[in-house]
Amino acid sequence: MNYEAFFADQLDHLKREGRYRVFADLERYAGSYPKAAYHGQQGMRDVTVWCSNDYLGMGQHASVLAAMHETLDKTGAGAGGTRNISGTSHQHVLLERELATLHGKESALLFTSGYVSNWATLGTLAANMPNCIVISDEDNHASMIEGVRHSRVEKRVFKHNDVRDLERQLADLDPARPKIVMFESVYSMDGDIAPIAEICDVADAYNAMTYLDEVHAVGMYGAHGGGISERDNVAHRLTIIEGTLAKAYGVMGGYIAGSAALCDYVRSFSSGFIFTTAIPPAVAAGVCASVKHLKQSSFERERQQDRVRRVRQGLDQLGIPHLDNDSHIIPVMVRNAVRCKEISDRLMDEYGIYIQPINYPTVPRGTERLRITPSPLHSDADIDHLLFALNEIWTKLGVGRSAVVGEGHPLAELCPVVGPLQADPAELGVDSCPFIGDAREGVAQEQVSAPVTTKVTT
Amino acid sequence: MNYEAFFADQLDHLKREGRYRVFADLERYAGSYPKAAYHGQQGMRDVTVWCSNDYLGMGQHASVLAAMHETLDKTGAGAGGTRNISGTSHQHVLLERELATLHGKESALLFTSGYVSNWATLGTLAANMPNCIVISDEDNHASMIEGVRHSRVEKRVFKHNDVRDLERQLADLDPARPKIVMFESVYSMDGDIAPIAEICDVADAYNAMTYLDEVHAVGMYGAHGGGISERDNVAHRLTIIEGTLAKAYGVMGGYIAGSAALCDYVRSFSSGFIFTTAIPPAVAAGVCASVKHLKQSSFERERQQDRVRRVRQGLDQLGIPHLDNDSHIIPVMVRNAVRCKEISDRLMDEYGIYIQPINYPTVPRGTERLRITPSPLHSDADIDHLLFALNEIWTKLGVGRSAVVGEGHPLAELCPVVGPLQADPAELGVDSCPFIGDAREGVAQEQVSAPVTTKVTT
Repeated sequence: MNYEAFFADQLDHLKREGRYRVFADLERYAGSYPKAAYHGQQGMRDVTVWCSNDYLGMGQHASVLAAMHETLDKTGAGAGGTRNISGTSHQHVLLERELATLHGKESALLFTSGYVSNWATLGTLAANMPNCIVISDEDNHASMIEGVRHSRVEKRVFKHNDVRDLERQLADLDPARPKIVMFESVYSMDGDIAPIAEICDVADAYNAMTYLDEVHAVGMYGAHGGGISERDNVAHRLTIIEGTLAKAYGVMGGYIAGSAALCDYVRSFSSGFIFTTAIPPAVAAGVCASVKHLKQSSFERERQQDRVRRVRQGLDQLGIPHLDNDSHIIPVMVRNAVRCKEISDRLMDEYGIYIQPINYPTVPRGTERLRITPSPLHSDADIDHLLFALNEIWTKLGVGRSAVVGEGHPLAELCPVVGPLQADPAELGVDSCPFIGDAREGVAQEQVSAPVTTKVTT
Repeated sequence: MNYEAFFADQLDHLKREGRYRVFADLERYAGSYPKAAYHGQQGMRDVTVWCSNDYLGMGQHASVLAAMHETLDKTGAGAGGTRNISGTSHQHVLLERELATLHGKESALLFTSGYVSNWATLGTLAANMPNCIVISDEDNHASMIEGVRHSRVEKRVFKHNDVRDLERQLADLDPARPKIVMFESVYSMDGDIAPIAEICDVADAYNAMTYLDEVHAVGMYGAHGGGISERDNVAHRLTIIEGTLAKAYGVMGGYIAGSAALCDYVRSFSSGFIFTTAIPPAVAAGVCASVKHLKQSSFERERQQDRVRRVRQGLDQLGIPHLDNDSHIIPVMVRNAVRCKEISDRLMDEYGIYIQPINYPTVPRGTERLRITPSPLHSDADIDHLLFALNEIWTKLGVGRSAVVGEGHPLAELCPVVGPLQADPAELGVDSCPFIGDAREGVAQEQVSAPVTTKVTT
């Protein structure tokens, strides 16, 4: 076995398939999020990030940063140990209480990440409950799948968000057998939302535990940010709610919330919890500030939903195909890996817009997409520039549209800086334009002389 | 199945066995490490931490905190995404370069923790190399074992640090089969050190990859903190060196270092790397400052080794049994779970000393211990107080000693605050004494009137 040759060959295979991932090397600017510096091959340049999971911009919220600064000065950088061996800080204890009350549960348990929360909790429960079986939504996240794989128990997969199929699977099983129904509230890549109450109805009928992954929903839905389960008033019906502290809450870490006995059980038996250093106290303090803020402020949620609507409307007007859903995730469908990468590259190189292409295996082949996540901090000008750029690229590359878009369409004149209006960025309330002047000229000219014309596809 | 009853019953079983873990709720004081506030049932009190894995106190080092503060202000709290989807920050890129050069490797790859580094890397390599087999030291950490378990490949276990047994296992295997020999440099609980060169000799002879976990050694051994592999000048012989950023480097996160192709392969194929939010840029920046500092400063390492020697000498003089090893880890052997917990409780309650008891399953039953980790920041007075406290408890509880200790032994008069000397803490250069005055009086009197007398055991 030539190990190096094996690795090189496997990587070549990825490259040939157009699936090799190149990471965008960024420096976000706190205080002017979603702007960031991009370290590219041609040096550093400013970009607007449109694919961050810091959904509400809480990663730069004053209360979060203040709590982190204060705790850094007070307790130092790291936790210094596992939770059991000198690594439990008072900040962890307070945060766990905050998360338990967020979901109306008796208890909560912190992990180093949402991935580890899922993997460790599901792996531990499934492996330890005698003859357990897991019934899993077919679109569940890798971390949930890996947790069950680790437990080596039997697993059945039900059709995505299909309650009748779930019931068929459950009806088939020995009633005495321990069962875990696992699913997500908001699915990351399609942005669709689970019928939680109906799933709980079925799970209850067959005495199954329910495990709900709310990583794309906590902080963002419900009056206090408790997720879709709060919005739908069903949090009390779920055995376990799992969430992340690295998306809407803006920092890092993951957790579960549930009964005191359940959390204590996972705390006591889960290798992935026990044998790892706790998250830094400053991280816990920052998250705690974030959770508290989003418990009492709905401004960020409402503003984000407004931004999402505005982007969707623009896409609809331009006929740029995107998946319809009730969440904040806007999947613009390209359905071709090479094309998807090309659009992403053009957005970055020509328009200063960063949207990572999403290819297989993150999504199935043939469903490649640009996953757009508007934040409360994207301005009208940011949105207009994004729509302008997408519209131009769609035209240039002849990408299929979902509706007729004609000359004189308002979007053709939208881009505040380089569109036909030629407005002064300052007049439009835009601090800086992410666009690079020189390279843009030719494109701007082309746009002026050849306004958007029709392409019809569905 | 009554799920709640199942969890409660399992927890009761732990409690009956004396294995139920109670976390010490601490607030460390940056700037006066190893001091911390302990939130106990009787309110808050000061303690001296003697079991932290922030081995060198880098968690409060000025350069680390400054880098974290600066990066928080510059880029915000979290990374905002997976490494692939908007989560790569320039701080990650710089830290990976720093870690690659630390070990003289082409490349390095960051993970959210040392646990995840081991689990994800070993799981990915073992599962993906056709017909791979893993040969594992019997004392390897849970995270390595879980990684191999996850891969579901065949595993063979060789006797701890036994090169001949390793060779026997390897000689038995098909030469063409991919093989990973996995081991640690410094073993966490016994503190003993692997014969790395000899293990590499054998692995090379049988064309096996070598995977070395250096989590308890990076930052602490070698001229630049490259670990035992640097100290022994064998880093170039290892296929993969894995380390943590949460122990000697004082913050959080984990990594592997190896060839460019290998790191790129794990980056491209490992679920535990791909589908999880990157560590916060501020954490990466803090770690980077820590790694850089310990590359050029040996002061912390030397001072720690001096502290370790001083504790060991004191234990030897008092006949308090501890495992002999060449590392910084001092396992004081109690060999009884209930007794171990009792000593730990007394240290905390009566002497303001925090040392977590280490019981099964972290160590085998019958080898329960107090794992003491002296840092460069433990003062002579801290050490004297620790020895004084252990000595008193050993006498009071009649715990076995490893040598004869007689009246008039110098340690009997050592405790700077409450020993027979009755010295003023300020005169001894001690800012504050962790001991609680009132509770202590009786003990001090008892000690004065009844100096340490003999107990002989081996």
